[in-house]
Amino acid sequence: MQAYQIKTGQQIAGLERVERSPAALAAHQVLVQVHAVSLNYRDLMIVEGNYSSVGETAVVPCSDGAGEVIAVGAEVTRFAVGDRVAAAFFPQWIDGAPTKQNTADALGGGVDGMLAEQVVLHEEALVAIPPHLSYVEAAAIPCAGVTAWNALFVEGRLRAGDSVLLLGTGGVSTWALQLAKAAGLRTIITSSSDAKLERARALGASATINYHTFPEWQEEVLRQTGGRGVDLVLEVGGKGTLTRSIASVGMGGTVAIIGGVSGFGGDFNPFALIGGAKRLSGIYVGSRRMFEDLNRFLGVTEIHPAIDRVFPFQQAREAYTCLKQAGHFGKVAIEVSK
Amino acid sequence: MQAYQIKTGQQIAGLERVERSPAALAAHQVLVQVHAVSLNYRDLMIVEGNYSSVGETAVVPCSDGAGEVIAVGAEVTRFAVGDRVAAAFFPQWIDGAPTKQNTADALGGGVDGMLAEQVVLHEEALVAIPPHLSYVEAAAIPCAGVTAWNALFVEGRLRAGDSVLLLGTGGVSTWALQLAKAAGLRTIITSSSDAKLERARALGASATINYHTFPEWQEEVLRQTGGRGVDLVLEVGGKGTLTRSIASVGMGGTVAIIGGVSGFGGDFNPFALIGGAKRLSGIYVGSRRMFEDLNRFLGVTEIHPAIDRVFPFQQAREAYTCLKQAGHFGKVAIEVSK
Amino acid sequence: MQAYQIKTGQQIAGLERVERSPAALAAHQVLVQVHAVSLNYRDLMIVEGNYSSVGETAVVPCSDGAGEVIAVGAEVTRFAVGDRVAAAFFPQWIDGAPTKQNTADALGGGVDGMLAEQVVLHEEALVAIPPHLSYVEAAAIPCAGVTAWNALFVEGRLRAGDSVLLLGTGGVSTWALQLAKAAGLRTIITSSSDAKLERARALGASATINYHTFPEWQEEVLRQTGGRGVDLVLEVGGKGTLTRSIASVGMGGTVAIIGGVSGFGGDFNPFALIGGAKRLSGIYVGSRRMFEDLNRFLGVTEIHPAIDRVFPFQQAREAYTCLKQAGHFGKVAIEVSK
Amino acid sequence: MQAYQIKTGQQIAGLERVERSPAALAAHQVLVQVHAVSLNYRDLMIVEGNYSSVGETAVVPCSDGAGEVIAVGAEVTRFAVGDRVAAAFFPQWIDGAPTKQNTADALGGGVDGMLAEQVVLHEEALVAIPPHLSYVEAAAIPCAGVTAWNALFVEGRLRAGDSVLLLGTGGVSTWALQLAKAAGLRTIITSSSDAKLERARALGASATINYHTFPEWQEEVLRQTGGRGVDLVLEVGGKGTLTRSIASVGMGGTVAIIGGVSGFGGDFNPFALIGGAKRLSGIYVGSRRMFEDLNRFLGVTEIHPAIDRVFPFQQAREAYTCLKQAGHFGKVAIEVSK
Repeated sequence: MQAYQIKTGQQIAGLERVERSPAALAAHQVLVQVHAVSLNYRDLMIVEGNYSSVGETAVVPCSDGAGEVIAVGAEVTRFAVGDRVAAAFFPQWIDGAPTKQNTADALGGGVDGMLAEQVVLHEEALVAIPPHLSYVEAAAIPCAGVTAWNALFVEGRLRAGDSVLLLGTGGVSTWALQLAKAAGLRTIITSSSDAKLERARALGASATINYHTFPEWQEEVLRQTGGRGVDLVLEVGGKGTLTRSIASVGMGGTVAIIGGVSGFGGDFNPFALIGGAKRLSGIYVGSRRMFEDLNRFLGVTEIHPAIDRVFPFQQAREAYTCLKQAGHFGKVAIEVSK
Repeated sequence: MQAYQIKTGQQIAGLERVERSPAALAAHQVLVQVHAVSLNYRDLMIVEGNYSSVGETAVVPCSDGAGEVIAVGAEVTRFAVGDRVAAAFFPQWIDGAPTKQNTADALGGGVDGMLAEQVVLHEEALVAIPPHLSYVEAAAIPCAGVTAWNALFVEGRLRAGDSVLLLGTGGVSTWALQLAKAAGLRTIITSSSDAKLERARALGASATINYHTFPEWQEEVLRQTGGRGVDLVLEVGGKGTLTRSIASVGMGGTVAIIGGVSGFGGDFNPFALIGGAKRLSGIYVGSRRMFEDLNRFLGVTEIHPAIDRVFPFQQAREAYTCLKQAGHFGKVAIEVSK
Repeated sequence: MQAYQIKTGQQIAGLERVERSPAALAAHQVLVQVHAVSLNYRDLMIVEGNYSSVGETAVVPCSDGAGEVIAVGAEVTRFAVGDRVAAAFFPQWIDGAPTKQNTADALGGGVDGMLAEQVVLHEEALVAIPPHLSYVEAAAIPCAGVTAWNALFVEGRLRAGDSVLLLGTGGVSTWALQLAKAAGLRTIITSSSDAKLERARALGASATINYHTFPEWQEEVLRQTGGRGVDLVLEVGGKGTLTRSIASVGMGGTVAIIGGVSGFGGDFNPFALIGGAKRLSGIYVGSRRMFEDLNRFLGVTEIHPAIDRVFPFQQAREAYTCLKQAGHFGKVAIEVSK
Repeated sequence: MQAYQIKTGQQIAGLERVERSPAALAAHQVLVQVHAVSLNYRDLMIVEGNYSSVGETAVVPCSDGAGEVIAVGAEVTRFAVGDRVAAAFFPQWIDGAPTKQNTADALGGGVDGMLAEQVVLHEEALVAIPPHLSYVEAAAIPCAGVTAWNALFVEGRLRAGDSVLLLGTGGVSTWALQLAKAAGLRTIITSSSDAKLERARALGASATINYHTFPEWQEEVLRQTGGRGVDLVLEVGGKGTLTRSIASVGMGGTVAIIGGVSGFGGDFNPFALIGGAKRLSGIYVGSRRMFEDLNRFLGVTEIHPAIDRVFPFQQAREAYTCLKQAGHFGKVAIEVSK
């Protein structure tokens, strides 16, 4: 079978396709025929050498994939041949709070990921995928979907009727938009493109803000919330956004930090958190349990995630380049096998 | 102005309409022209003498009403003439946990309620009503709506994707159905009437169970949830329902007890809670803050509560009789003034 | 090596000592030389045939034991030879909420327990024991200690300054007394013996009630709490106790049901929960994570659990009989090997 | 009666003592003879013009005072003449979450505070003080004590057995030390003075770190926690402390920001929060309910707060100067009247 591999820092051109044979299955391992993979900004950061906590050796990249079980080890009980599955971002973080131990391994970071025709994983690292989703759609869940779920409903503790501000229309933000809408939240989303904002409204955004039109967009957020601010901002990073995000959130609210598309422009003053009793929360994807909770919610609400483009397996480099150009709305995916 | 009054135990026929003049407004009081009132099962229990914590003297009945501010005391800051308002069930329970002090007074119980053309209330006891609701619809919120909200999202701590079982199609159950649907929960509802179940499906019920067809309805609940049971049952009372409700709820789940339409048939075994780590929670309506949170959610989702019938002010006894006959779906209301 | 075994219902006399050889270690298994075991009321119920969810075949009884690692399987990483360990009540409930899956096995119930000189367990089922505790003391933790911890701090969500009522001076109640005291809670404890109440005061009880002197002990609880009631009652069962426990708990409080020494005398009225917004919570021991959290707390506070008597391995039947006679204060233990 | 007053920015020398007559009592107001006041770093910031959200006009300074009720308005029900009381920092934040409305007024900031022989306050703004505390001790609670309580147990959600790092030995840190110890937490405290660290150990500190000896004190925190880090840091500000505080906290832990003795040296990188799923939480004192919860805890545990020095009313400027010199351990107080 074929797999991509890369060492961190080798750039997109360094992605190479190699022939590999899967190892023999240990007692609790499962062999998965991967059908689809989706890309996350982290995958690009790894390739470009901007992501810490990765090793020196070449690994199969990408955390997010979905496929079909084609063989199981002797003692596997959670899955059978033919089951449709996806892998959890952290194969060892099952439930409860994160620890150094259960987040030590992350697919496509320190250990082999999903951009391969076949992968071998421990049965505990896999989850069943919702029946109403295609493999491409299911491959959009593990990193971006679970991150959005954790930010909104676990760490963010949002409840029906709360309001959330989403920055941009990348994978996590569009996931959060769809999840928030289906959970009865009010959503405000920003973009520099009116066309993307129109698509966001079609997905259920309660309000939209073009940050070219409103460079001081935090003022527009306050205006649209009667001066109170939103309950949570999903902060994806960007020059000068953090100070505006903190200003956009209301008293007792949370700014969930889920990464940084372009880093943070530095002048954040921690005092700004005190008078508003505000919270800045780092979101580190999530546990398998969160993944399962999200899947259950997807099943109830029949959400289909926004997929921007699907590239064939041979064009993985083109898929990375598409993500890098940042013109997408939702997720960029790769169809690995049919 | 005219008002109904009743002493507990005088039966429906004891409801009498009397002429009253509202007292002069104290500094923080508000005069409200009541437009609509809705009935709750508690109102019937009070009239029939089956409700504890009421006094000996005649009071204006009914906790739930909505109207327009027509005068304000000298120091009132929360409302102005013309504002559309409803009263909180407990005028003194503003926020936080319930205490004996903040639940000492309840409208239409120990103190005068809302079935009057005009009422005088402390400004802190009132909340603004959602703009998209009529007065009749807004009058459906204070007891039944807030009880459903508290059971599902405060005490019940349900999250998007969780499942809830609703017993019957009375006011609280239909509220819970609509709230749960809009918050991304899975809903199962029971009734003895296929016609009512059809209406419930139209309101968004994921599954329905006719308990005449399935007298052992807890087995059907387990079947429909893959053996796991639901996360919460909203238990409204009835002969033998409690044991079935506990059986219907999954491990770690909650049976929220919100009253008893016909009492509980006694043979509950507390041991049944241990092996499933289950919880039985008494729901005592809720705070003004819960009311406000619910209103915000209603505004985001534009829910209109299910109103069964609206009686004119002169036919308050007929409205009580309608509730007693238990043929309704949703709320029974009284239009007090136009 | 020697082990006791019993089929449920064979009574104390049916406990028999047999020679067994431990099975060969699988990759993730650990061989433990058991040094001490402690008894729980559940162990007696199993022997007497009053406990559901046990199998038909003879098993090694007792969930609670502590010992030393004397061999490890080829892939074990959590423990090494020489480590001091105890087993978790549910070998598969690691973290998060309980499920049917993770509570399917319980030591000394459906699967072999700890009353043996040597036991083989999966490495994930073991926890390190606090250095300041002897093996006998550590053997008191797994069922009774974790149950008390879960009731007070996980399900009960008590915080410093809250108040708790403990019924009797058995294993769980004395654990709860010591934990609550060290966590800054106010404690009230009942007994029919003034001598035991004196010992409870020595362990830190804030107040004591002799329920022979005060058969209506709930009134005394209310008197001692200025009429407010306690925040949590740890209900261990007994004729007529449940109604009194619910009366003893304040608004918004919890009655944690952890078992029933003598069953519950039946006339509980669920309505009693509504007006007080009270909660009845079944406590099903707890997860390995709770065990670890408790151990950490024990390490910080250097609590030594109350041990009533220690029997030699040969006198296991006498230990069971001692527990049955209910004259103990704290835990009844068995020293398995030195 | 006499009172101090000051405009923000007038420096310590600008504190002037003036003769005032208390206004007549409105229906719900209470006249309090102030016996003691304690100073907080905020009081110094206001005097030095470094505190936002204060007005332009002269006000009576200081949020924290305790005294005796000497007269009550016509409709007051919460207190009677002779009661021992303290005022809540935010007179309108009773319970629940903070809002712009309920935190709009703060004593000694926008409205008159407690450094006066007599003060008039709404009955809802007062709390009864624990019987075992002197007025000087009770005056130490409202800002520093409630802030520590909120940080540890409300926003910080710490539980028995968790660990906390305290920076320095000022008022909030010594409160937190005493509260944490009595609640069964592990405490680590820093100072540049071995003498102060010795006093901290006498108050129950589990471990101490002299940050002159260990300028990279975060490494020492990690060493003392087996590499895991603490569950919460109480960050009081200082050059370069924030980055070290974030490094000192373990996965999923919280850095509670409660102010800044000397501001924050700027180079905080928000990314540092993601990989550890860490949280930065602004603490804005707390509600009256938190104050009452803390008082209850103080009553159960009989804690006496650490008071460094007590100045007479005439020497208020000297008290401010003492605080400014930062040589104190615990609180600096002023005895207003005997």
